[in-house]
Amino acid sequence: MSTHSPAVDRRRSAARIERDIETLAGPDYTLSSEAIRRYAYTGAYRNTLSYFVRELEALGFDCGFDSVGTLVARNRPLGEPAFGIGSHCDSNRNGGKYDGTMGVVTALEVCRLNHELELGLPLQLVSFLEEEGSGFGQMLLGSRIVAQRVTEEDLRERFRAIDDGRSFWEHAEEAGFEPARWREAARILDGLTGWIEMHIEQARVLQDTGNRIGVVRAIAGYVHADVAVHGRGDHAGATPMDMRLDPTTVLAECVLELERLAREAGRGTVGTVGEIEVTPGIINAIAERVRFSLDIRGPEDDAFRGVARDIAAYAARAAAGRGMRAEYAERQALPATPLSAELVSALEAAAAATGEPYTVMVSGAAHDTMCVAPRVPSAMVFVPCRDGISHHPDEEASPDDAALAAEIMLNAIAATCRPGR
Amino acid sequence: MSTHSPAVDRRRSAARIERDIETLAGPDYTLSSEAIRRYAYTGAYRNTLSYFVRELEALGFDCGFDSVGTLVARNRPLGEPAFGIGSHCDSNRNGGKYDGTMGVVTALEVCRLNHELELGLPLQLVSFLEEEGSGFGQMLLGSRIVAQRVTEEDLRERFRAIDDGRSFWEHAEEAGFEPARWREAARILDGLTGWIEMHIEQARVLQDTGNRIGVVRAIAGYVHADVAVHGRGDHAGATPMDMRLDPTTVLAECVLELERLAREAGRGTVGTVGEIEVTPGIINAIAERVRFSLDIRGPEDDAFRGVARDIAAYAARAAAGRGMRAEYAERQALPATPLSAELVSALEAAAAATGEPYTVMVSGAAHDTMCVAPRVPSAMVFVPCRDGISHHPDEEASPDDAALAAEIMLNAIAATCRPGR
Repeated sequence: MSTHSPAVDRRRSAARIERDIETLAGPDYTLSSEAIRRYAYTGAYRNTLSYFVRELEALGFDCGFDSVGTLVARNRPLGEPAFGIGSHCDSNRNGGKYDGTMGVVTALEVCRLNHELELGLPLQLVSFLEEEGSGFGQMLLGSRIVAQRVTEEDLRERFRAIDDGRSFWEHAEEAGFEPARWREAARILDGLTGWIEMHIEQARVLQDTGNRIGVVRAIAGYVHADVAVHGRGDHAGATPMDMRLDPTTVLAECVLELERLAREAGRGTVGTVGEIEVTPGIINAIAERVRFSLDIRGPEDDAFRGVARDIAAYAARAAAGRGMRAEYAERQALPATPLSAELVSALEAAAAATGEPYTVMVSGAAHDTMCVAPRVPSAMVFVPCRDGISHHPDEEASPDDAALAAEIMLNAIAATCRPGR
Repeated sequence: MSTHSPAVDRRRSAARIERDIETLAGPDYTLSSEAIRRYAYTGAYRNTLSYFVRELEALGFDCGFDSVGTLVARNRPLGEPAFGIGSHCDSNRNGGKYDGTMGVVTALEVCRLNHELELGLPLQLVSFLEEEGSGFGQMLLGSRIVAQRVTEEDLRERFRAIDDGRSFWEHAEEAGFEPARWREAARILDGLTGWIEMHIEQARVLQDTGNRIGVVRAIAGYVHADVAVHGRGDHAGATPMDMRLDPTTVLAECVLELERLAREAGRGTVGTVGEIEVTPGIINAIAERVRFSLDIRGPEDDAFRGVARDIAAYAARAAAGRGMRAEYAERQALPATPLSAELVSALEAAAAATGEPYTVMVSGAAHDTMCVAPRVPSAMVFVPCRDGISHHPDEEASPDDAALAAEIMLNAIAATCRPGR
């Protein structure tokens, strides 16, 4: 395949990507001078979309929005087949320059390369609304609307702006969109022959394994749950060791067992206790209650769901073994999203052709692609982010790696569409 | 000894104790209608002291105060030997009717019995100021002033009212006392031949072992400390199990090791993790840091201090074994207070003579007696409190048990003083 690849000037791509990123980190594009902070229907967000529209129109793309504000830009008329690329350009509230935005910028670079190399690839760029949930507290909101994974009541009533408590519906109308036609947002996936989202990795696997590119073969599903252990509050000094019902001991056993279970399950399964709440939480009182969160994920449903079942049962046994009671309550669960084997192969071939180090991996984080993949053959490309830092102003990724990703995406799409053959 | 014991009418004692307790739970004696809330220099506290003064003057006692407001009542002139009894009658801010107050009420009952049985025992009743620290955030404040375990700067500057931030010194002067003469407070222990404090147990040992009386042979010392474990904050979904530096795992190991070490140390040693603080403490982030508190106590200094040393070393090893770092920092430490073997024996004999179930035990909680014992042969008597609940409006103890304690104290003091022989 490498012999048929177009000749990409990666340094020029990197320079353009860097210029886009730095421009979109400027004062017109963020609500905060300390961080990137932009979300749906704010001036900073509108300016960001306008930037992409200007750049894409210069390449001959028709730009528009779905019924709630997801940007859709095509170099072919609606209805004709095209290959989808893109990500999101909203940020979390204390965000960096790269999460999401670098994916849209890299998709724009693919469009530029397609244009200047005259490849004639049919492309559709998408920038999904509200991936981070900074506006309305709902992650993947734009892509979930496209996938029809919301209800009208959610949009009219339940989803409310963090800033002013008014409904998503009201804000969307005020911004000039037609939330009443939200079901039509599904159409933006019509005619897509494939979908590739590029994103920063948000962890340290690529950095620590010395790879510049990660070809994502699956996005982990997850279980979010809580365990509450009910013990008995007693005086820390006056209660002998053998008269205690101390729920922190059950917490301790569960933390270690979760680690063991996740390692034993393997196959990319991970488990984390991120929140621990001790009641009353004072130095001289044995806790009466401990609540802790579970975040259990993996690319294989049976593996991570098995860990969730096992830790729930273990917590109950561990508590009972000490004369206490533990309750497991699931907050939310989402199945894993396998990606297209064909697209993964095309990306692998394109990556191999560059001679640069790459790996095939799993995404532990959620992405808009989870909402696209059920309808369109999909894949993702990751680039390293320094020390795995993300969702923070210190977030850092390399335009050189993004340029490499653009080249690999372009070649994989070209190989898939075979327009020039 | 039982043949020489005065004939105490326990039912009458119980009725008087109940009347005292219920009176002092009335609206004139607490700042809150939801709980007992009284502390130094408030109207509720003054009224409580006045109640004791009236009752004691009716028994022929001379009543006065030390230089900061600790009540001292004697049936012998100052300077002559007397046996000390008492406790404190301030409460914590959300307190019950029994903690402290029942000890002063029971001491009053001892004075009544001495009077009506015409035993002629030389007695000094003391109600220490600010045991709970509700006024100025300083526990055992009155008895620490008596024991000279404060500095003038503490009283003038450092100790400030929780309510208005003004100094202890200013409040004491405003209440009509002479804090400038605080060193003279030490004199209230002059001439004391012994000291017995009665208190509710504040734990469940007596209740759960079916004993009505606990004779306290030592008050536990303690170490209060914190351990901070520094890990690495990473994405909970995207970071493989073998690339984590998750400090919650070190916390877990330390909680279980502390339990093991305290059990192994035995001799009344206990260890508790009461506070756990996870940073950032969100479900989908591996913690970057965990801090947890240690409360390690016991009646034998080498045992509980050994546990503190061992858990500090273990935390460092456990963290290092996982590529992390743990820091141990002591907040405060106090040695154990052994009590008078002679007084403990006298109380045991008096308890045995009643035929009621009693036990010899250790106090895990701190008490004013810790500040008396270095100068005066001292002991304590505990009575059960329901389910170990204390420092709470639900606190409950039995006037019958307190009457039994009064009889035992009276007989032990009589045996010690031998006035009638």
